[in-house]
Amino acid sequence: MKKVQERNVKGITAEKDEFSEWFTQIMLKADLADYTSVSGCMVLKPGAYSLWEKIKEEVDKRFKKLGILNVYFPLLIPEKTLMREAEHFSGFTPEVAWVTHAGETQLHERLAIRPTSETLMYESYAQWIRSWRDLPLLYNQWNNVVRWEFKHPVPFLRTREFLWNEGHTVYASKKEAEAEKDKILKVYKEVCEDYLALPSLVGKKSKKETFAGAEYTYSMEFLMPNGRAIQGPDWHHDGQNFAKAYGIQFLNKEGKQEYAYQNTFAITTRMLGVMFAVHSDAKGLILPPQIAPHAIVIVPIYFEDSKENVLKNCRALAVVLKKYGAIIDDRDTYKPGFKFNEWELKGVPLRIEVGPKELERKEAVLVRRDTGDKEVVKLKDLQKAIENKLEKMQESMLEKAKRLLYGSIVECTTLEEIRQAIENKKLAFAPLSGDAGVEDELKSRMNGAKVLTIPDVQPKSKKKCAVSGRDATYWAYIGKSY
Amino acid sequence: MKKVQERNVKGITAEKDEFSEWFTQIMLKADLADYTSVSGCMVLKPGAYSLWEKIKEEVDKRFKKLGILNVYFPLLIPEKTLMREAEHFSGFTPEVAWVTHAGETQLHERLAIRPTSETLMYESYAQWIRSWRDLPLLYNQWNNVVRWEFKHPVPFLRTREFLWNEGHTVYASKKEAEAEKDKILKVYKEVCEDYLALPSLVGKKSKKETFAGAEYTYSMEFLMPNGRAIQGPDWHHDGQNFAKAYGIQFLNKEGKQEYAYQNTFAITTRMLGVMFAVHSDAKGLILPPQIAPHAIVIVPIYFEDSKENVLKNCRALAVVLKKYGAIIDDRDTYKPGFKFNEWELKGVPLRIEVGPKELERKEAVLVRRDTGDKEVVKLKDLQKAIENKLEKMQESMLEKAKRLLYGSIVECTTLEEIRQAIENKKLAFAPLSGDAGVEDELKSRMNGAKVLTIPDVQPKSKKKCAVSGRDATYWAYIGKSY
Repeated sequence: MKKVQERNVKGITAEKDEFSEWFTQIMLKADLADYTSVSGCMVLKPGAYSLWEKIKEEVDKRFKKLGILNVYFPLLIPEKTLMREAEHFSGFTPEVAWVTHAGETQLHERLAIRPTSETLMYESYAQWIRSWRDLPLLYNQWNNVVRWEFKHPVPFLRTREFLWNEGHTVYASKKEAEAEKDKILKVYKEVCEDYLALPSLVGKKSKKETFAGAEYTYSMEFLMPNGRAIQGPDWHHDGQNFAKAYGIQFLNKEGKQEYAYQNTFAITTRMLGVMFAVHSDAKGLILPPQIAPHAIVIVPIYFEDSKENVLKNCRALAVVLKKYGAIIDDRDTYKPGFKFNEWELKGVPLRIEVGPKELERKEAVLVRRDTGDKEVVKLKDLQKAIENKLEKMQESMLEKAKRLLYGSIVECTTLEEIRQAIENKKLAFAPLSGDAGVEDELKSRMNGAKVLTIPDVQPKSKKKCAVSGRDATYWAYIGKSY
Repeated sequence: MKKVQERNVKGITAEKDEFSEWFTQIMLKADLADYTSVSGCMVLKPGAYSLWEKIKEEVDKRFKKLGILNVYFPLLIPEKTLMREAEHFSGFTPEVAWVTHAGETQLHERLAIRPTSETLMYESYAQWIRSWRDLPLLYNQWNNVVRWEFKHPVPFLRTREFLWNEGHTVYASKKEAEAEKDKILKVYKEVCEDYLALPSLVGKKSKKETFAGAEYTYSMEFLMPNGRAIQGPDWHHDGQNFAKAYGIQFLNKEGKQEYAYQNTFAITTRMLGVMFAVHSDAKGLILPPQIAPHAIVIVPIYFEDSKENVLKNCRALAVVLKKYGAIIDDRDTYKPGFKFNEWELKGVPLRIEVGPKELERKEAVLVRRDTGDKEVVKLKDLQKAIENKLEKMQESMLEKAKRLLYGSIVECTTLEEIRQAIENKKLAFAPLSGDAGVEDELKSRMNGAKVLTIPDVQPKSKKKCAVSGRDATYWAYIGKSY
């Protein structure tokens, strides 16, 4: 754990290009999260948790409109249950945290803390689903999962416990199941773009990167400022794999037993880390207005003789601006300059400064967190100006993130070009053969860079595979990834 | 797990006085929850989970108004951390689920799945709190906890994993800390009474029943229809116990180091079980309108020639009644009688029947789930009638539950009277000495009945202790408890 001394120095002392140190400082100093005595696990403080609540709320609202219902399944999964789908099990078992004792008693069977809940849920699904009338079954849960990775943990991005939604849906036909994809990805895309101001590359995972147990996986890939890609929300079509392993069968309309078709999908607290990393700067955090619980901070500026009048006016303003979650920093113990820095560090999108001078002129000063632009606004025009600025800021943060993402993509047709792109912290877009060996070779020769995603909309030009020289199957995005 | 055959028989086949069998049938047949292959743990199906979401929403809204902020701490607690407050540790350690392995690797220190989070949170609090400026610190989390009880599990009421809120607040003075009690208990009481329609006995726990590590505990005690009491939400004042064990100190305004004062409080998914048990009947579940996600079900009644017209009108009605979460049961495959039974089983507060006859007369039939009362209402008066009926139903469910609770209290002054009250499945209200031995003696002589709670408002009459014959310290409620 960081020494207290160092933690208490205000302001970010690292540059954004020293990514890891900078990211840690943002987390600690903007009061988002903290380490704990449990290795690889973190506390989400109110600053970060309130953002997760907003993500949950927005995703959940959209899920409910799609008819998806929330449930809660147990945390612990008996080893036998976990083992029933072999591929899935071998994908997760190296990271499973095992409960072996309760109090002084050794359990007769080990229990896994859920790394994901397919296995336990599908055992129940097999009991609940009898006929086509029970389908589709559209369940989701918001919970915590544990994956005891031994790689170096990174706050938010790779932690041993994280929060997420896990949607687990069952359909009578493959066609219906597959038709779900676009609806779910639309939900995640809307929330990521319109709230988190984060663009992504959406596409299909290569066979090698497909979720353990799934037939195929679609994911949203994001770009971090250090040039690494990171996988965000995903949607998996499981075909009948789990249905066969767990016996999820139904009587179809013709009275015949059939195995059902399944999908799963998730968004995790990792997205908070992506948002913090993409949008913040050397002064600290920058929160997109749509997700900030407090889009406005009002800082009163006064001397002893103007104090009462300034505070009164600021408080009246806070009431008017309640829908933006406006807060007043009326602490007597700090100077305005200190407060400016603190709220910049914490990423509040808009600052309003109100002093005696401004009040006399019936004005206020608005300062945008992302650009630092200052504007003096007449009080009567304030609401309109705020509305406008917050909207602009949300838009321009998304635009800036898009420039970062799309500006990082380099079209490559040879291994050498891919290598250069990766070295320059870019993403390569290159033609590849879908052959089994190509991805392994790519990974080993590119120092761990891998296929991130294969977009549905493909370039028209047919090329040779950049790795094998054989005919290419598709163009794919390639990069180093978390 | 129950055999499928038996599970699929519709309707409750047990009487309410065979409590355990009846309760299990309500749970399974009203589609609230189910067993899993993890012993003592259950699935909350959408029927139950949606009710928990409502409880969360209402409690959380009120907490936020009190300035309480949500956080998320890790699930796992290192053994060393758990051990730092000895009394607390010994209270929980017999029920702790221990993680000993991750993948193939044995951990060098065992990790407890949180039975509650004081220990881990307070380690962080000790780092975060430096000065009086950091206080009060008002944090809460909504999460899952595991207590591996070896007693017979009962769905909802005693499960090895449950969901709850855990509030953990820190104050600079004992007075401020103690002033929190009434605010928190008011939140819980409002939600239990106004939404769950559940009255309770509120009071202080005896020394023996005080939470492990707390100075004193206040709780809300509910009465189940089988005569057993059950503890609901509680609030604990910890004094400086944990502050001293975990080193939570702050510089006060005079520049001196002081230990802080702490409280904790919780409401759990157990309350769902209490609500189901108290309000339901031989036909199935009865949900209070204020908490029912669907307060109304519309059942269309038609023959082939009237089908189109009836369905059209029902759908229009559902749109008008959207704010009640009205649903239409337009399944073609079931007869109205079957549907009536199913929605009665699932506890929907109000049923609206609409057939060609009713439409001709511009009427609908309203049926209240709790009383079974039927009323024919003109369509133009429908909204007002619904509003009125739902309000009445909510009130009368609370009144009925109050009659059950208060009608079960028997004033006793001797051990023999207490014994009789308990045998008759009543709660005893009796004068007791606060001496250490009295509670032990009571418990052993009363077949496990114990002191439930000591109300703040005490009878004027001074009496002798019903157990020891010495001067009584207080009047207390006594009963068998879950």
